[in-house]
Amino acid sequence: MKIVLLSGGSGKRLWPMSNDVRSKQFLKVLQGPDGSQISMLQRVWNQLTTVNLLEDAYVCASKAQADSIHAQVGFVPVIEEPERRDTFAAIALSCTYLADVVGCSDDEVMVVAPVDHYVDNEYFERVSGLEEQLNASHADLALLGVEPTEPSSKFGYISVEGETTSQPYRQVQSFVEKPDEDQAKKLIASGALWNCGVFCFRIGWLKNILLSKGISPSYTDIRENFKDLPKNSFDYEVVEHASSVVASPYNGKWKDLGTWSSLTEEMGDGFVGLGETVNCEGTHVINELGIPLIGMGLKDTVVVSSPDGILVADKQQSSQLKAVLKKYHGRPMFDERMWGSYRVLDYQELEDGTEVLTKSIELKQGHNLSYQKHRWRSEVWTFVEGEGELAVDDRIIPITPGDVVRVYAEQWHAIRALTPLKFIEVQRGAELVEEDIVRKYVSWEDVQRHCGVTI
Amino acid sequence: MKIVLLSGGSGKRLWPMSNDVRSKQFLKVLQGPDGSQISMLQRVWNQLTTVNLLEDAYVCASKAQADSIHAQVGFVPVIEEPERRDTFAAIALSCTYLADVVGCSDDEVMVVAPVDHYVDNEYFERVSGLEEQLNASHADLALLGVEPTEPSSKFGYISVEGETTSQPYRQVQSFVEKPDEDQAKKLIASGALWNCGVFCFRIGWLKNILLSKGISPSYTDIRENFKDLPKNSFDYEVVEHASSVVASPYNGKWKDLGTWSSLTEEMGDGFVGLGETVNCEGTHVINELGIPLIGMGLKDTVVVSSPDGILVADKQQSSQLKAVLKKYHGRPMFDERMWGSYRVLDYQELEDGTEVLTKSIELKQGHNLSYQKHRWRSEVWTFVEGEGELAVDDRIIPITPGDVVRVYAEQWHAIRALTPLKFIEVQRGAELVEEDIVRKYVSWEDVQRHCGVTI
Repeated sequence: MKIVLLSGGSGKRLWPMSNDVRSKQFLKVLQGPDGSQISMLQRVWNQLTTVNLLEDAYVCASKAQADSIHAQVGFVPVIEEPERRDTFAAIALSCTYLADVVGCSDDEVMVVAPVDHYVDNEYFERVSGLEEQLNASHADLALLGVEPTEPSSKFGYISVEGETTSQPYRQVQSFVEKPDEDQAKKLIASGALWNCGVFCFRIGWLKNILLSKGISPSYTDIRENFKDLPKNSFDYEVVEHASSVVASPYNGKWKDLGTWSSLTEEMGDGFVGLGETVNCEGTHVINELGIPLIGMGLKDTVVVSSPDGILVADKQQSSQLKAVLKKYHGRPMFDERMWGSYRVLDYQELEDGTEVLTKSIELKQGHNLSYQKHRWRSEVWTFVEGEGELAVDDRIIPITPGDVVRVYAEQWHAIRALTPLKFIEVQRGAELVEEDIVRKYVSWEDVQRHCGVTI
Repeated sequence: MKIVLLSGGSGKRLWPMSNDVRSKQFLKVLQGPDGSQISMLQRVWNQLTTVNLLEDAYVCASKAQADSIHAQVGFVPVIEEPERRDTFAAIALSCTYLADVVGCSDDEVMVVAPVDHYVDNEYFERVSGLEEQLNASHADLALLGVEPTEPSSKFGYISVEGETTSQPYRQVQSFVEKPDEDQAKKLIASGALWNCGVFCFRIGWLKNILLSKGISPSYTDIRENFKDLPKNSFDYEVVEHASSVVASPYNGKWKDLGTWSSLTEEMGDGFVGLGETVNCEGTHVINELGIPLIGMGLKDTVVVSSPDGILVADKQQSSQLKAVLKKYHGRPMFDERMWGSYRVLDYQELEDGTEVLTKSIELKQGHNLSYQKHRWRSEVWTFVEGEGELAVDDRIIPITPGDVVRVYAEQWHAIRALTPLKFIEVQRGAELVEEDIVRKYVSWEDVQRHCGVTI
């Protein structure tokens, strides 16, 4: 059985910690087994290990997230979504990837689960048992159903046959999306479960469904025509039309930690970063700016600072953040990549429209930035620590602390860290966007070959 | 009559807005007559204008504050204290400055007042009337006394003769420092006034007192031996020993705005900077970081962000800030000078002890940095906007946007803005302190002459 974890998009409700690149699953705010700060992704990774699913695990994510994933959990195959297009498209892409790239047969079972749910270890035991339920029930689809703890009208319900059964799965009758409280009470009384987005099926079954929809079940075709796939959830597009579905009940913690109120409930420490709280109750502080933050006399408050902004909110009211934020769609101010990380130190727009962006960049030992050029901007690099090699004008020259390099627009350049390398970058240009990169070579060997170095 | 305004030291209770350089009197958080944000200093300046005291005004302040004073209120003579040494030393320096530098006679009356008290316009009417009270009463010293509004045990009381009098001044009997509440009630019943640190006397009178203490009443001597003067308040050292003292009562607002709780009471807007508050009550936000700050569901809270740090506090509890702050004695992260301003963007201490400091610097048109060198640091300047002239290696060269200049340790350099000039500075060295500056010439003419330019 293969497991595909769906790595969702940006969580505006967790601003200013999450942005388009740093989604909530990458925030290191949870307490790991050894007391260190870990992310939701890392927590799930630990849990997959306990049920031996790690070597059959894949992550379906946007290209922008791939580096964060590798930086946090090491190597794992990432099935890259060409764009964000809801769960049906993501699962179709993953299914055909397993078939065509990994070489799985039509009989192979795959299970899909969201990466950003906060659950007990037992959840993944149930997930790994879904293949058995699929076999035993001869159903097309096996779901995980969470046993409801309250008649919430926020979730989808799986209505099942019979209130109790000695079998570890139940036959699914129907799906009810976000019922009102009364209806939810009746559903719970009848044994209904919450739908938590975990789907288990055979690869051949989904490929047939794709065919029936006129979609070629080929990875290459789906990847190329990704934008033409229905932008719809897997629930609506597939699950609700399946003829034979079973659900395996899970009785344990299941939270999406999508708001500061729910996330801080699972945070260990009340304070992350520089500073302290005095006389505070029920208050959580995450301070990612390198300046002290002092909280005094606060109650049930969440304070979060990052290069993107500062939030000070009553925990209950923090769920309304998304609506307030619409006007602040700024650039990401911090990013962790495979090769290292950068922080935006400063951004200025001059009167003539010229933009100036100053970054602090750290390149990990042995890593390099690709051989690239920019059309609209020049860059000045002031090297402050470490030894490196710079490729520019078809030559490779050594870099030591104190060196200053100016890269003009349209000038090809790359940089490699011989030891951990820190530098300050000042970008200057008409339009400073991350996309203004033309890449020629990614590997340093190719850069060396290009520069005539005998390897 | 001359008026000397004492510009006090740092206000740790207003962290993170005030630091050793930016004292509370320079914070632009009050509402000016035209609705703009003004500082306490600027407010006092407006009030001095209404009583025609402006052209006889002097400010006694530290050297570090002189630039801020000029930037905020234009030219005013600043009597520079060689170091912070309480009010006796500051007033002795000011008195001899008026005598020896300004040329005032011994008969000239001077009045001393703190610059950081928030008062009604009537206060300065009373201040300007003190000379008349001094003449009418034939006293040595005329004080301003604030009519108490509560039996506070935080203030010093001036006990006066007779409960009521038709005269605009009262004879002072004694001084009682911080009485308990019962004693304060009795003092108030007897007509006592709060001592607000306003002293009016003849220059010759104080010079005689200095002589009697064995202190030479010469500006040069006092300045040179400043560190040997008693570190004591003018009240203890002089006022309480004076034989003939009168006090002129003032009935109006008198607050020192020294805590966030008292300061926010006088702030107009509830929000300064980028961002907004939603569903907040009695909450003030000052956001000096250029990133959005969002406050949600807060009550009686003060939120202040600056490059020095972030405070989120219940207003009442914010007065205990000073005790909490002891451990965060960092460098100032923002400074406004005569020549322009700078912001610290980043500070890193590398493993080998090397420090790296990145600043964004703005130099005003026509201004220059002095011809200077640093012993312990190199600097890289990346010019991003404006035209300038750089003096280095005894030459003057033109600077345009995009130029990059590296200045080595021990290399003399200066920079002048022909148009408003912006640059990013990366300092690198063993010990990055503001004091590591050896200055040769301050004026650009001297720099030009040194570089052989015919002016």
